Amino acid sequence: MSTNPSWNEHSVVEYAKSLDAIDPLRRFRDEFVIDDPDLIYLDGNSLGRLPNRTMKRMEEAVRDQWGGRLVRGWGEHWIDLPNRLGAKIAQLIGAQSDEVLVCDSTSVNFYKLIMAALEVQSEKSEILTDDANFPSDIYLLQGCAKQLSQRLKIVPQAEVASSLGLETAIVTLSHTSFKSGYIHPMQELTAKAHEVGALMLWDLSHSVGAMPIDLNGSNVDLAVGCTYKYLNGGPGAPAFLYVRRDLQEKLLNPIWGWFGQKDPFGFSLDYRPADGIQRFMAGTPNILSMIAIESGVDLLLEAGMDRIREKSVSQTEFLIQLWDNFLRKYGVALNSPTDSVYRGSHVSFGHPQAFQVDQALIEEMKVIPDFRQPDNIRFGVTPLSTSFEDLAQAVLRMSAVFEQGIYQKYPEQANGVT
Amino acid sequence: MSTNPSWNEHSVVEYAKSLDAIDPLRRFRDEFVIDDPDLIYLDGNSLGRLPNRTMKRMEEAVRDQWGGRLVRGWGEHWIDLPNRLGAKIAQLIGAQSDEVLVCDSTSVNFYKLIMAALEVQSEKSEILTDDANFPSDIYLLQGCAKQLSQRLKIVPQAEVASSLGLETAIVTLSHTSFKSGYIHPMQELTAKAHEVGALMLWDLSHSVGAMPIDLNGSNVDLAVGCTYKYLNGGPGAPAFLYVRRDLQEKLLNPIWGWFGQKDPFGFSLDYRPADGIQRFMAGTPNILSMIAIESGVDLLLEAGMDRIREKSVSQTEFLIQLWDNFLRKYGVALNSPTDSVYRGSHVSFGHPQAFQVDQALIEEMKVIPDFRQPDNIRFGVTPLSTSFEDLAQAVLRMSAVFEQGIYQKYPEQANGVT
Repeated sequence: MSTNPSWNEHSVVEYAKSLDAIDPLRRFRDEFVIDDPDLIYLDGNSLGRLPNRTMKRMEEAVRDQWGGRLVRGWGEHWIDLPNRLGAKIAQLIGAQSDEVLVCDSTSVNFYKLIMAALEVQSEKSEILTDDANFPSDIYLLQGCAKQLSQRLKIVPQAEVASSLGLETAIVTLSHTSFKSGYIHPMQELTAKAHEVGALMLWDLSHSVGAMPIDLNGSNVDLAVGCTYKYLNGGPGAPAFLYVRRDLQEKLLNPIWGWFGQKDPFGFSLDYRPADGIQRFMAGTPNILSMIAIESGVDLLLEAGMDRIREKSVSQTEFLIQLWDNFLRKYGVALNSPTDSVYRGSHVSFGHPQAFQVDQALIEEMKVIPDFRQPDNIRFGVTPLSTSFEDLAQAVLRMSAVFEQGIYQKYPEQANGVT
Repeated sequence: MSTNPSWNEHSVVEYAKSLDAIDPLRRFRDEFVIDDPDLIYLDGNSLGRLPNRTMKRMEEAVRDQWGGRLVRGWGEHWIDLPNRLGAKIAQLIGAQSDEVLVCDSTSVNFYKLIMAALEVQSEKSEILTDDANFPSDIYLLQGCAKQLSQRLKIVPQAEVASSLGLETAIVTLSHTSFKSGYIHPMQELTAKAHEVGALMLWDLSHSVGAMPIDLNGSNVDLAVGCTYKYLNGGPGAPAFLYVRRDLQEKLLNPIWGWFGQKDPFGFSLDYRPADGIQRFMAGTPNILSMIAIESGVDLLLEAGMDRIREKSVSQTEFLIQLWDNFLRKYGVALNSPTDSVYRGSHVSFGHPQAFQVDQALIEEMKVIPDFRQPDNIRFGVTPLSTSFEDLAQAVLRMSAVFEQGIYQKYPEQANGVT
C-alpha cells in the first residue's frame, strides 16, 4: 500500500468513475432502491439495501398469499420456506442444501447450536472464544456456560490456536470481526479445534454474502449467520443455521418446539426430533420476514460470490488508498488489516472523535457509515450496490468534516444498531 | 340449548341476516381483505385475515422505512416496536404496558419463561400440565424437564387442581384448548397454584383477541401468546410474552442475546440483564413481521374486547343451535363445551370421517374450517370478520356434504397448520 501523490479531489473522483465504468457487476446497482444517488450508504454491513424485487415479492406475499389464500398459503407457499431459503444460502457458504435452515434470530440459533454441542461434549469443560467476537455471542456463551457449568475462556484474537486443549468442548468465533473486519483462517482453526476433539462453530454474520465461504471444504461442524447485512434480507430478518450432515442426528435442539418435531401435525404428546436439519427448528417461522430474504440471496447467486469478493477487495483496497491520501493526516487510524486476505468487506477507521465525525457525516454530509464503540467508524462495502465513486466521495466528505472542524459541534455520546 | 323446529334452509339464513343487521360490530368486516364473499373462512383461529390497513402499513415499512431510510429506520421507527406493540397487547390481556413484549415465536418465548421459572423454583421437582395443552407446549416442557432434571406430570384436564402439590414448581396450561375450545378458569387455578408455591404460566394463543383476559386481576405470573390467530398478525408473526412486574427482576432469560442486555450498543463483553421486561428479549427482532401485527391489534382495541366476546358467544351459541338442527342427525358430535362460560371462540365438531368432510368443505363447498387429529373439525369464529350468515351457510354446506355423500371421495389422511 503506497500513497498515490498525484490524486487530488478532482482526479480521484475521475479515477473512481473509471473503475466503475469497467466494473462487471455495475448493473446490479440498479437492482436496489436508491432514492437519492447523492446519499452515500456505507452501512450495508449493518442493514443491507432493499432490492426492487423484494418490494414486489412482499406485496404479493401480503396481498395475494396471506390476504387471498389465507391459511391455504401454508401448503401452497410457506411451509418449506426455512428449507428452500436454507438451500439457497447453502450455495453461498459451501454447504449441502440439507445442511442449512432459515429460522429464528442469530442469537436464538447460536444458543440452540451451542447448547446442543455442549450436551454431546459434556465430558469436556471449556468454551473458547476471542475478545473480538460479537458481544451478543459472548453474552450467549456466558449464559450457556452458567447453565451447563462450563468455563468460558475469552482470549485475544491471536491466541485462539494456542489456547486450545483437550478440555476445549467448543470453539466459536466470528469469521469476520464486526469491528476490525479481520477474517480468521477458517480451515486452519477448524482443523486445530478438531485435533483436540473440540467442535467448531463459526458466526458468519459479517462474512456471508461478502465473500465465498466453504464450510464443507473446511469440515466445519456448525455455523450461524445473519441475513440482514450483506444478504439484504430486511430489518431483523430471520437468521440461518448450519449443521454438518453427519452431526445432525447426534445433536439435539434444546428448544423442543413443534416445527422441530418429526410430525408436527400429528399432534402426538411425545416429542420425537425430526430427522436431519429440521430438528433445529423451534416455533412457527416468521413468514413475512422470511419472504423478504429471497431476492437478496438470488442477486448474490446471480452475481457470483467470486466476482463479489474480487470487487470487494478492490473496493476496500481503494478505501485504504483513499485513507492514506486524504484522512491519515487528520490522525485517522486504519483499524482493519492491510492484507486483503485477512480483511472482510468493511474498513474501520479509528479516531478519538469518531462518534462526532460519524454524526457529522450523517447529519450534514449525506454519508452513512456506522460507529462502533469506542472510536471506530466503519465504512461497509456492499459490492452489488456500492460504487467506487461512492467511496471516493465519502472519504472526501469525511476529510472536509475534519478540515472544516464540522464534527466539533456534535456531542460526545454514542448509540447505533448493527 | 334446544332445537328450533321452525328452521329450514331458507329461514335460518334469513334469521342469520337479521342478526347481522343488528350487529354493532358489523362495520369491522369492511376492515379486512375479503376477495370472495362467498368463500366462508372459519379458520381465523389458525391464521387471521389480512386487515386492509396492514397492506398500506407494510408497503410503507418496506418501501419508505427500509428502502428510503435504511439503517436510520432503527432509531426512527423500529427499535421500540417490541415494547410499543407489547403495550398495546397489554390492553387486551389486562396487563401493564411494561409487562408485555413482542418477540420471537410462541415456542421460544415459552421456553424462555419456563426455563427462567424453573431456575428460581429449583428446590421443587415437578412441572404440571394437562393433556389438552397444545402439543408444542408439551414438547417444550419435555425438553426443559430433561435439561433441568425435573419431572413432567401430564394429567387429564379435570385433574389439574387436584394434582397440585408442594413439589409443583410451575403449572402451565393453554387458557383455551386448541381442540375443544374449553376455557380453564384462570383466576381459580392461578390461586390454587399459588397456594402450593407454584408459578403459573398461561398460554393465551387461542384466547387473546377472542375474549377479555385479566392477567393482573388473576395475579398471573407468566403468559405467552400468539399474534397470528385472533390478532390478525400474519403468517408466523412474532409472539408475545408477559412477566408480572414484581417477577421481572427475579427471573433471568436463559438466552442471553444482546437485545436483552442492559446496554446493547455499549458492546461491553459482560452480560448484564436489562431492567424490567426488556431482559426477556434475545436477538434482533423481526421488524417486517412485527409491523404487520399492529393494525390487527388496533382493530380489536377499537371494537373493544367486551363487545367482541359478546358477539363471539352469540355466534358460537348460534353454531351450536345450527349443529343441533342440521348436523347432529349425521352423527356429528359436539366436542366443545355447551356452557359458554367455558367455551372459547371456536366450536369443534367430531365425526369419524372428519378429515374427509374437511377436505370436501374446502375443495367443493367454499368453506374453510380446519381439521385436528384424530376426528375434529374446528369452526373458528372471529367476530370482527365472521357474520352470522357465514355460520348458517357453512353449516348448511356441511350438511349437504353429508346428505350428498360428497366426503366419500376424499382419502382418509391428514395434514394442516395451526
